[in-house]
Amino acid sequence: MKILLYNPNTTQSITDKLYNTAKLVTSSGTELVPMTAKKGFPYISNEAEAQISGTTVLEVIAKEHRNYNAAIIAAFGDPGLKAARSLFHIPIVGLGEAAMLSACLFGKKFGIISFTNNMSAWYEESVETLGLKDRYAGFRAIDSVILSIDKIQSVQKKNLIKSAKDSVEIDGADVIIFAGAPLSGFKKKVEDKISVPIIDCAEAAVKQAELSVAMTNKFSNKKSYKTKLPPKKSIGLNKTLSDYFSHEI
Amino acid sequence: MKILLYNPNTTQSITDKLYNTAKLVTSSGTELVPMTAKKGFPYISNEAEAQISGTTVLEVIAKEHRNYNAAIIAAFGDPGLKAARSLFHIPIVGLGEAAMLSACLFGKKFGIISFTNNMSAWYEESVETLGLKDRYAGFRAIDSVILSIDKIQSVQKKNLIKSAKDSVEIDGADVIIFAGAPLSGFKKKVEDKISVPIIDCAEAAVKQAELSVAMTNKFSNKKSYKTKLPPKKSIGLNKTLSDYFSHEI
Amino acid sequence: MKILLYNPNTTQSITDKLYNTAKLVTSSGTELVPMTAKKGFPYISNEAEAQISGTTVLEVIAKEHRNYNAAIIAAFGDPGLKAARSLFHIPIVGLGEAAMLSACLFGKKFGIISFTNNMSAWYEESVETLGLKDRYAGFRAIDSVILSIDKIQSVQKKNLIKSAKDSVEIDGADVIIFAGAPLSGFKKKVEDKISVPIIDCAEAAVKQAELSVAMTNKFSNKKSYKTKLPPKKSIGLNKTLSDYFSHEI
Amino acid sequence: MKILLYNPNTTQSITDKLYNTAKLVTSSGTELVPMTAKKGFPYISNEAEAQISGTTVLEVIAKEHRNYNAAIIAAFGDPGLKAARSLFHIPIVGLGEAAMLSACLFGKKFGIISFTNNMSAWYEESVETLGLKDRYAGFRAIDSVILSIDKIQSVQKKNLIKSAKDSVEIDGADVIIFAGAPLSGFKKKVEDKISVPIIDCAEAAVKQAELSVAMTNKFSNKKSYKTKLPPKKSIGLNKTLSDYFSHEI
Amino acid sequence: MKILLYNPNTTQSITDKLYNTAKLVTSSGTELVPMTAKKGFPYISNEAEAQISGTTVLEVIAKEHRNYNAAIIAAFGDPGLKAARSLFHIPIVGLGEAAMLSACLFGKKFGIISFTNNMSAWYEESVETLGLKDRYAGFRAIDSVILSIDKIQSVQKKNLIKSAKDSVEIDGADVIIFAGAPLSGFKKKVEDKISVPIIDCAEAAVKQAELSVAMTNKFSNKKSYKTKLPPKKSIGLNKTLSDYFSHEI
Amino acid sequence: MKILLYNPNTTQSITDKLYNTAKLVTSSGTELVPMTAKKGFPYISNEAEAQISGTTVLEVIAKEHRNYNAAIIAAFGDPGLKAARSLFHIPIVGLGEAAMLSACLFGKKFGIISFTNNMSAWYEESVETLGLKDRYAGFRAIDSVILSIDKIQSVQKKNLIKSAKDSVEIDGADVIIFAGAPLSGFKKKVEDKISVPIIDCAEAAVKQAELSVAMTNKFSNKKSYKTKLPPKKSIGLNKTLSDYFSHEI
Repeated sequence: MKILLYNPNTTQSITDKLYNTAKLVTSSGTELVPMTAKKGFPYISNEAEAQISGTTVLEVIAKEHRNYNAAIIAAFGDPGLKAARSLFHIPIVGLGEAAMLSACLFGKKFGIISFTNNMSAWYEESVETLGLKDRYAGFRAIDSVILSIDKIQSVQKKNLIKSAKDSVEIDGADVIIFAGAPLSGFKKKVEDKISVPIIDCAEAAVKQAELSVAMTNKFSNKKSYKTKLPPKKSIGLNKTLSDYFSHEI
Repeated sequence: MKILLYNPNTTQSITDKLYNTAKLVTSSGTELVPMTAKKGFPYISNEAEAQISGTTVLEVIAKEHRNYNAAIIAAFGDPGLKAARSLFHIPIVGLGEAAMLSACLFGKKFGIISFTNNMSAWYEESVETLGLKDRYAGFRAIDSVILSIDKIQSVQKKNLIKSAKDSVEIDGADVIIFAGAPLSGFKKKVEDKISVPIIDCAEAAVKQAELSVAMTNKFSNKKSYKTKLPPKKSIGLNKTLSDYFSHEI
Repeated sequence: MKILLYNPNTTQSITDKLYNTAKLVTSSGTELVPMTAKKGFPYISNEAEAQISGTTVLEVIAKEHRNYNAAIIAAFGDPGLKAARSLFHIPIVGLGEAAMLSACLFGKKFGIISFTNNMSAWYEESVETLGLKDRYAGFRAIDSVILSIDKIQSVQKKNLIKSAKDSVEIDGADVIIFAGAPLSGFKKKVEDKISVPIIDCAEAAVKQAELSVAMTNKFSNKKSYKTKLPPKKSIGLNKTLSDYFSHEI
Repeated sequence: MKILLYNPNTTQSITDKLYNTAKLVTSSGTELVPMTAKKGFPYISNEAEAQISGTTVLEVIAKEHRNYNAAIIAAFGDPGLKAARSLFHIPIVGLGEAAMLSACLFGKKFGIISFTNNMSAWYEESVETLGLKDRYAGFRAIDSVILSIDKIQSVQKKNLIKSAKDSVEIDGADVIIFAGAPLSGFKKKVEDKISVPIIDCAEAAVKQAELSVAMTNKFSNKKSYKTKLPPKKSIGLNKTLSDYFSHEI
Repeated sequence: MKILLYNPNTTQSITDKLYNTAKLVTSSGTELVPMTAKKGFPYISNEAEAQISGTTVLEVIAKEHRNYNAAIIAAFGDPGLKAARSLFHIPIVGLGEAAMLSACLFGKKFGIISFTNNMSAWYEESVETLGLKDRYAGFRAIDSVILSIDKIQSVQKKNLIKSAKDSVEIDGADVIIFAGAPLSGFKKKVEDKISVPIIDCAEAAVKQAELSVAMTNKFSNKKSYKTKLPPKKSIGLNKTLSDYFSHEI
Repeated sequence: MKILLYNPNTTQSITDKLYNTAKLVTSSGTELVPMTAKKGFPYISNEAEAQISGTTVLEVIAKEHRNYNAAIIAAFGDPGLKAARSLFHIPIVGLGEAAMLSACLFGKKFGIISFTNNMSAWYEESVETLGLKDRYAGFRAIDSVILSIDKIQSVQKKNLIKSAKDSVEIDGADVIIFAGAPLSGFKKKVEDKISVPIIDCAEAAVKQAELSVAMTNKFSNKKSYKTKLPPKKSIGLNKTLSDYFSHEI
């Protein structure tokens, strides 16, 4: 099985972190192919940027989906996830959704830990959209200024552990999600410090992608979703996307 | 006060319907400027198309917002609404949100009537995102094939009235929303047939836009929203949008 | 258009505050007529008093409604609002409902700030009744003893600003509502101090009343609500109300 | 223990039905005193009438509460219940609340059966206000015109049984509530026909009143509720009520 | 009427506390029979233990139910309650459910106070299962180590009062439930210290059991619940239970 | 990795169906070990039976868990799941939870199809307990009498397809779950007839078990859940379980 690991951020080092973490948990027989966004933002950090990068996600998957059994949209806000699912026949997995559904296997309530307070409202909206509000213990983030997205794991280690402990002890979290692509791989470094199970987003995404492929077998060869569209004209879209809508590819 | 009435569909006749309906309820002193999308789909009819047109909405408002006191995104799925609100300082109003919030003034539960069943799940998701599920009596649509978006109001008049009556009598709706830009102006033609108040989306949008401007007075000159972003680099975006993100315009 | 601004509190100075604030945002062509309750309490401050004043509201609107295009019940607990809506054909607007529905246009979650903790449970119940719990960031009030309802805005200015800031920074409010008729006009004095949009109840009520009239056009001449009652006998009611129920007026 | 069974409808025969049903399940030692409203409507059938009768309820309990250990407001819409609870020191029980809380002991979901469709929205609102929506299987009513409130039980017996069976078999109700004072005593006539437990409102109210008194022992002699008010002036209220607010009685 | 007060904990002194408290509020004519579990744990303190003791509850009631008009499962987590209700024809009451439904009569929101933090998630789950989340002000417990279940009331009196006051003042509770069989009888010792009504679980259980019997009259002689099972074979069950399933007893 | 596939029903042919279906989707390197309950019921079909079998589940896992990396409780009602998770250090997966969480990857709302109406309320309760009510399109079952649990898939094929189509077309399901161990393997026989993705419970359970093991790596060697209990005495329990509680095994 061949899985596209698409990082909608334009930062290569984030892709590396995601790939290095995810490949350690792939089953034998799974080929994982990393790809970094060529359009967009170094790091998607709000809904406006997610709106814009979500369109690019569609352009990329329109071009690549026939070469893969599944695609991962590797940003926690899951930009373009619902739109992609309604358009393409392969399973599409989002980093945030995968982490939250995985967390539900390990305890009643998950706490989300991130490195910037700005994302609180946005991530809470993801929880609501998924219908998982009853499983949500809340969001906690460190307050410090982010100097470099690359050094968060080392510079903020203590603060992130503190936030996770508070989520368990104060908010009542039974499971911790370290949220956001830049935190992939962080679980390994801290799991001895936290008393409850920890979800790594990159691990969750690749395992949920494998599960999706295994459970769909023939889905990719048939009309798997209800909303399969008839050919449709458009104006001014990216060429691949326009061709996909008009059924020319 | 000058309000941009932006139709994210590429069909001019839909813009005409919206404008002709909305201008009848504008207050004296309000200038309403219609504009039809140059990129996108003749009629946005699902979340994938809304994802794509939502990005175009941002491009257009980035270019135009300094010339207006408010902007209306005139499609019921409110493409790009949340993203636009987080980016621009003028009030932004969406057709769907405006209709639903207005409906709340006229009764406990609103029923949504549209002309195609495909939109049921999508519109229900709008209701959930707005947090108005407790005010929602359900969705009803006519089953017939849509031959021409222009002739819906005349050809489907009887069926739409039937759906509205069922919404009141079976689903318990206290208010009816005729949903979607192509139904703007339809209220006038049928209000004697329906026993409860009817919401016209175009009317709702322009009145909510006027209300927003009246209530914000100085907002457009100050930092009105919390998520005002620092300058940010991007790659490959539409020029206006990229300049807006980098604070060059 | 002629709008009745009925203050169900018996304090004239509250009426003045409401009127002076609201008239600044009325559209040209709107005549706003203030009226102070002749029966009831100086300031309605709990559900028991709202129950009693709600009946007086019905008596007053029964007498006055044929002279107006809409009526505002100018107390945040909206005494008698639902009952009035089911009885009379003109649009009826409540201070609380108008403020909360308006707030929904400016951000995901609104925080309610008031001048006494007693109203926390009552106002939260209003939020629930409106079905807006998912949009509610919580209630905050100052703790100090209220010496004079007239001097709250000057004496408690600092404390109210502090509560509003806490609502934004701790509770995550995207919009602030200063709740209660005695706080009408307060927005103008503090909006430079608060980083998010502020809703003034009096402004919201008059704009929502105008919107309601504009969107209902013919409603006042036809059976607009489902629950229009047949003539009904009663015993011991206020004369106007009794005549209204028996269809004698 | 002495319990006031106050019927806020002005129809004596409804009081008789309530009393005759309730007294059969009172414990020895309970004295139940029936009283019929002297002001109001023959039968309260919507929220507007409940608003008006709710104020009368307060006037009556203000006058009578020192003579009783508890009071029952014997109409299913519970007019004035919350207001009365916040004002008086004896336990106050409402017909609707008592029926619904009792139903929760006998199964997961209760269905509400009444004799007129008009009350559907109003009763559903009671369910929501009680926070019992997850326990609610829905409302069913007979369609026929009500000729006489007195003859419902005999004339509509078959239709009411049919509605109850549909509630069980179609809506999934585990318990049936026959709602409204005019249906008190009806349970006995039909319980052999219905496969699930049935709640009689009058029985529920008197047993919940007894339970409340037994569980509060000293409550009536101390400040039992948080919202106990300081003396308050009012204008134009019913004399007893005004005296109660000003602590003159 | 004869009511079984079954304590699923194996500690006799807990049974004594429950019985001594409950018997003070029984109506004349009610015979209350205490019984202590012979199998299980000294004190059930989590869902795993409740799962195990819940099966023993079924064994005991299978053996005893023909001798009683109702049975109380006297542990706050209500082990086996739903299962027992679906199997046996007499009313079954649980300590937790009875306390929470009773609390709903005395205020909008109840706070739960217990003596160990471990039970927070478990009790919250009970609240959710009952569908009473909108009535729930939260859980508070003392932090101290529990040395002896018997001495909690005396040793922890101050801490429990403090928790109850915080629940009222910080969490907004209108009613306090002292949760857990070991706290039965504690209400009497502290009610002068707490400004809102207090629910004693043992009192609530016996009064709800009496109410259930009074309201079901003929239920115990007929098929009262929908899920009455046909005879069913089983392997390896406790003899009484197996016989009950196979309709041999 | 070694996974225990424990069928809590005592019917061997159900175990065979589960095993034959699940083993086709196991990853290379996974050893799946089937085991049939020696105590309990031929087919668990309500909450009372689930209560009893849930205790047996604990006895079996107490004995076996040190030989496995994960355990599957292969009945849709997930008997004993929460209790097992709080007691044992290996991941525990339930058939129902696994199916529902998997379904969330393939569409907004899942419909549950089963072969008997009796389970409607019980399965709906599972959905609620999982907090997935917003993702639930409803339950549908065939009405016919079940003659043999073994022949359901062949005898009821047409009826089950009809129920699934109704769930999609009437209830708006985006994904279908064929619920219950006796329906494992049925997906393959009908997936060409249904227009949306189908979830097979046995497939879902084994893939979620593999995912859980892959994502927990070191969890089985450390204190993975918060509620790890200190040694505890008990009376009259099954020997293995008693030893496990007292930390003797």
